[in-house]
Amino acid sequence: MNFADRLVAGVKQKRSHAVVGIDPVLSKLPAFLRDEAAAKYGQTARGAAAALVGFSRLVIDAVADHVALVKPQSAFFEVHGAPGVEAFWETVRYARSKGLQVISDAKRGDIGTTAEAYAAAFFGHPNPMDSWEDPEQWADSLTVNPYLGSDGLVPFVNRCQARGTGIFVLVRTSNPSSGELQDQELFSGENVAQQVAKLVHYLGGRLVGESGYSSVGAVVGATYPEDLARYRREMPRAILLVPGYGAQGGTAADVVPAFNEDGLGAVVNASRSVIFAYKRAEVSPTEAGEAIARAAEAMNHDINGALAAAGKLAW
Amino acid sequence: MNFADRLVAGVKQKRSHAVVGIDPVLSKLPAFLRDEAAAKYGQTARGAAAALVGFSRLVIDAVADHVALVKPQSAFFEVHGAPGVEAFWETVRYARSKGLQVISDAKRGDIGTTAEAYAAAFFGHPNPMDSWEDPEQWADSLTVNPYLGSDGLVPFVNRCQARGTGIFVLVRTSNPSSGELQDQELFSGENVAQQVAKLVHYLGGRLVGESGYSSVGAVVGATYPEDLARYRREMPRAILLVPGYGAQGGTAADVVPAFNEDGLGAVVNASRSVIFAYKRAEVSPTEAGEAIARAAEAMNHDINGALAAAGKLAW
Repeated sequence: MNFADRLVAGVKQKRSHAVVGIDPVLSKLPAFLRDEAAAKYGQTARGAAAALVGFSRLVIDAVADHVALVKPQSAFFEVHGAPGVEAFWETVRYARSKGLQVISDAKRGDIGTTAEAYAAAFFGHPNPMDSWEDPEQWADSLTVNPYLGSDGLVPFVNRCQARGTGIFVLVRTSNPSSGELQDQELFSGENVAQQVAKLVHYLGGRLVGESGYSSVGAVVGATYPEDLARYRREMPRAILLVPGYGAQGGTAADVVPAFNEDGLGAVVNASRSVIFAYKRAEVSPTEAGEAIARAAEAMNHDINGALAAAGKLAW
Repeated sequence: MNFADRLVAGVKQKRSHAVVGIDPVLSKLPAFLRDEAAAKYGQTARGAAAALVGFSRLVIDAVADHVALVKPQSAFFEVHGAPGVEAFWETVRYARSKGLQVISDAKRGDIGTTAEAYAAAFFGHPNPMDSWEDPEQWADSLTVNPYLGSDGLVPFVNRCQARGTGIFVLVRTSNPSSGELQDQELFSGENVAQQVAKLVHYLGGRLVGESGYSSVGAVVGATYPEDLARYRREMPRAILLVPGYGAQGGTAADVVPAFNEDGLGAVVNASRSVIFAYKRAEVSPTEAGEAIARAAEAMNHDINGALAAAGKLAW
C-alpha cells in the first residue's frame, strides 16, 4: 500500500496529526531504565542500547493511542555503536508491532549505488546477492537531504515505489541558520528551498496515492510560519513533516498553514516536549508513561483545536 | 595533533595524494571471502559483515604502502544492519592500526544536540553521562552535508577542535545532477556551492594547523575541472577531497587544479577502480591483493606525474 495513503489512513483513524520524535539522550532517561540496563549489561554500549530500547517501548506504549507516527532519531542510537543501531531497529519493529508508522530520521543523502545502499538499509533489501539477511528490518519512511540534486533523491524514490515506503526531503528546516543556504535568493527570483520544493513536487508525481497525497514528502519547519503557506502551495500533494512545534517555539497556530483545506497534508513533530515530559529522572514507570501520554494528548488537542478554529478539521 | 597537519604529514611520508574508497558491495567481493564467511556464519547479516571485514583488511593490507588515507563508505556497511556497523568500525580500527588515516564517508548532517550525537558517534564520546562505553571507536574525519547551514557544521567543528579530527563539507559534488542545486546562481552573482565554500573557509579559520591547512576540508568533484581552480582559490586553507577520479571519468590532469602551488591541499579518491581491480570473483587472495596494490600504485604514479608536469610536486 502507498505510504501516503497509509499515513493519511493512520492520521484519520487516530484523529491526530502528531508525530512523536524519539530522541533518547541517555542522561535524560528515567533512572530506573538506566539502572536496570546497567545491572544487566554493565555500563557498556550494550547496556546503553538496552536502556534506549526500554525507553522507546515506554514512549511507544504511552503514545500509541494518541498518534499514528513516531520518528526515532538515528543519531541518538548511532552514538552507541552497533548495539545502538540494533536498538534503533528494535524500536522500529516495536513501533510497527503497535500499529504505528515509523519515520526514520536519519537525513541520509548520497548518489548512485551508495544511495541505493542507504535505501536498502532503511527500506529493506531487494537483492539477495548484495545482502544475505533481511530480518524484517525496514521503516515506513526516511528523511533525506537534497544537496546532491535529483541523483540523490531518485534512488530513494525508486525504492519507495517498489516497497510502498516514503521519504521526507529537507526543504526548509527549523533551525536558526537554515536561511544561510535555504533562503538565498536565486537569480530566478526564487530561493534555494523553493528550488528543492519544485524537485520534491516533480519527483512526487510518480507516487501519488488514492488519497491524493504523494509518498515524497517534505520537511518544512514551523519556526517560519510565513513560509509554511508558500511551501504548502508549491507542493500541494506533498505531506509536510513540520518540526519546530513545542520545545523549538512553534505554536499550534503556527502550523495551521501547513495543512490543506481538506485538513490533511501535514504531520507535526514534537520530541523533547513529549518524551521528557516527566521532568525528573527519579520517576516511576507509571508516572513516566502517564506524563508522556498526557503530553501527546495535549499536543493533539492543541493542534486539532487550532485546525478547528481555522475550519480545517478533517473529521 | 591537528587533523590537517596529520594528513599533510601522512601524504608527504607516503608521497601519495590518493585516498582509497572502501565501498564493499557483497556481490563484487572475491568469492573466497564470501564462501569463508558463509561457511562460518551462514548467509546471515553477520556473515555478510564478516565478508566485508575480510575485504576491508585485504584492501588495507594491499594499499597501506601506497596511500595515507582510506575512505570507508558507511552506506555499504549500514545495509547489513548492526553487524554491518560493527564491520565498519572494525575496518576503521584496522586501518588505524596500519597507520592509515580514515575518512568516514557518511555524509551526516543535522543540528544542535543531534549533530553533537553524530559527532560523538564518529569522533568518540566526550560525556560519560551520555555514553557508557567508547571502545576506541573514532575516525579521523567525516564527510558532512551543509544544507542546514552553520548550525549543522559548528557542532562538528567544535568536536574536531576538541578531538583533533576533521570534516570534509560537501561543496561541489561529482554527480551529474549536482548542479541542480549547487550551480544555481544567487542574486549576489555567486552560486550556491560558492556560498557553502565561504562558510567552509570561515569556519575553518579556527582549525588551521602548523601546516597552514585547516581541519575543515571540502568535497569538490573532479568531474568539473573548471570549478576546481575556483574553489581552490576560494578556500585556500581547506584540504579538498576530490572524488570523481577513475571510474567516474576524472583524469589526473583534471585534478591538478585542486592543488595549491606547494603541491599540497588536495587528496584524490578512487573507489571501484582500485578495490575491484581484480575484475573477477574467482580470484586468489594473493592475486586480489596484488591487483588492488597495483591499481593504487598506478593511481599514485598517475597523479604524481600530472603534478610533476605542472610543477606542483611537493617532494
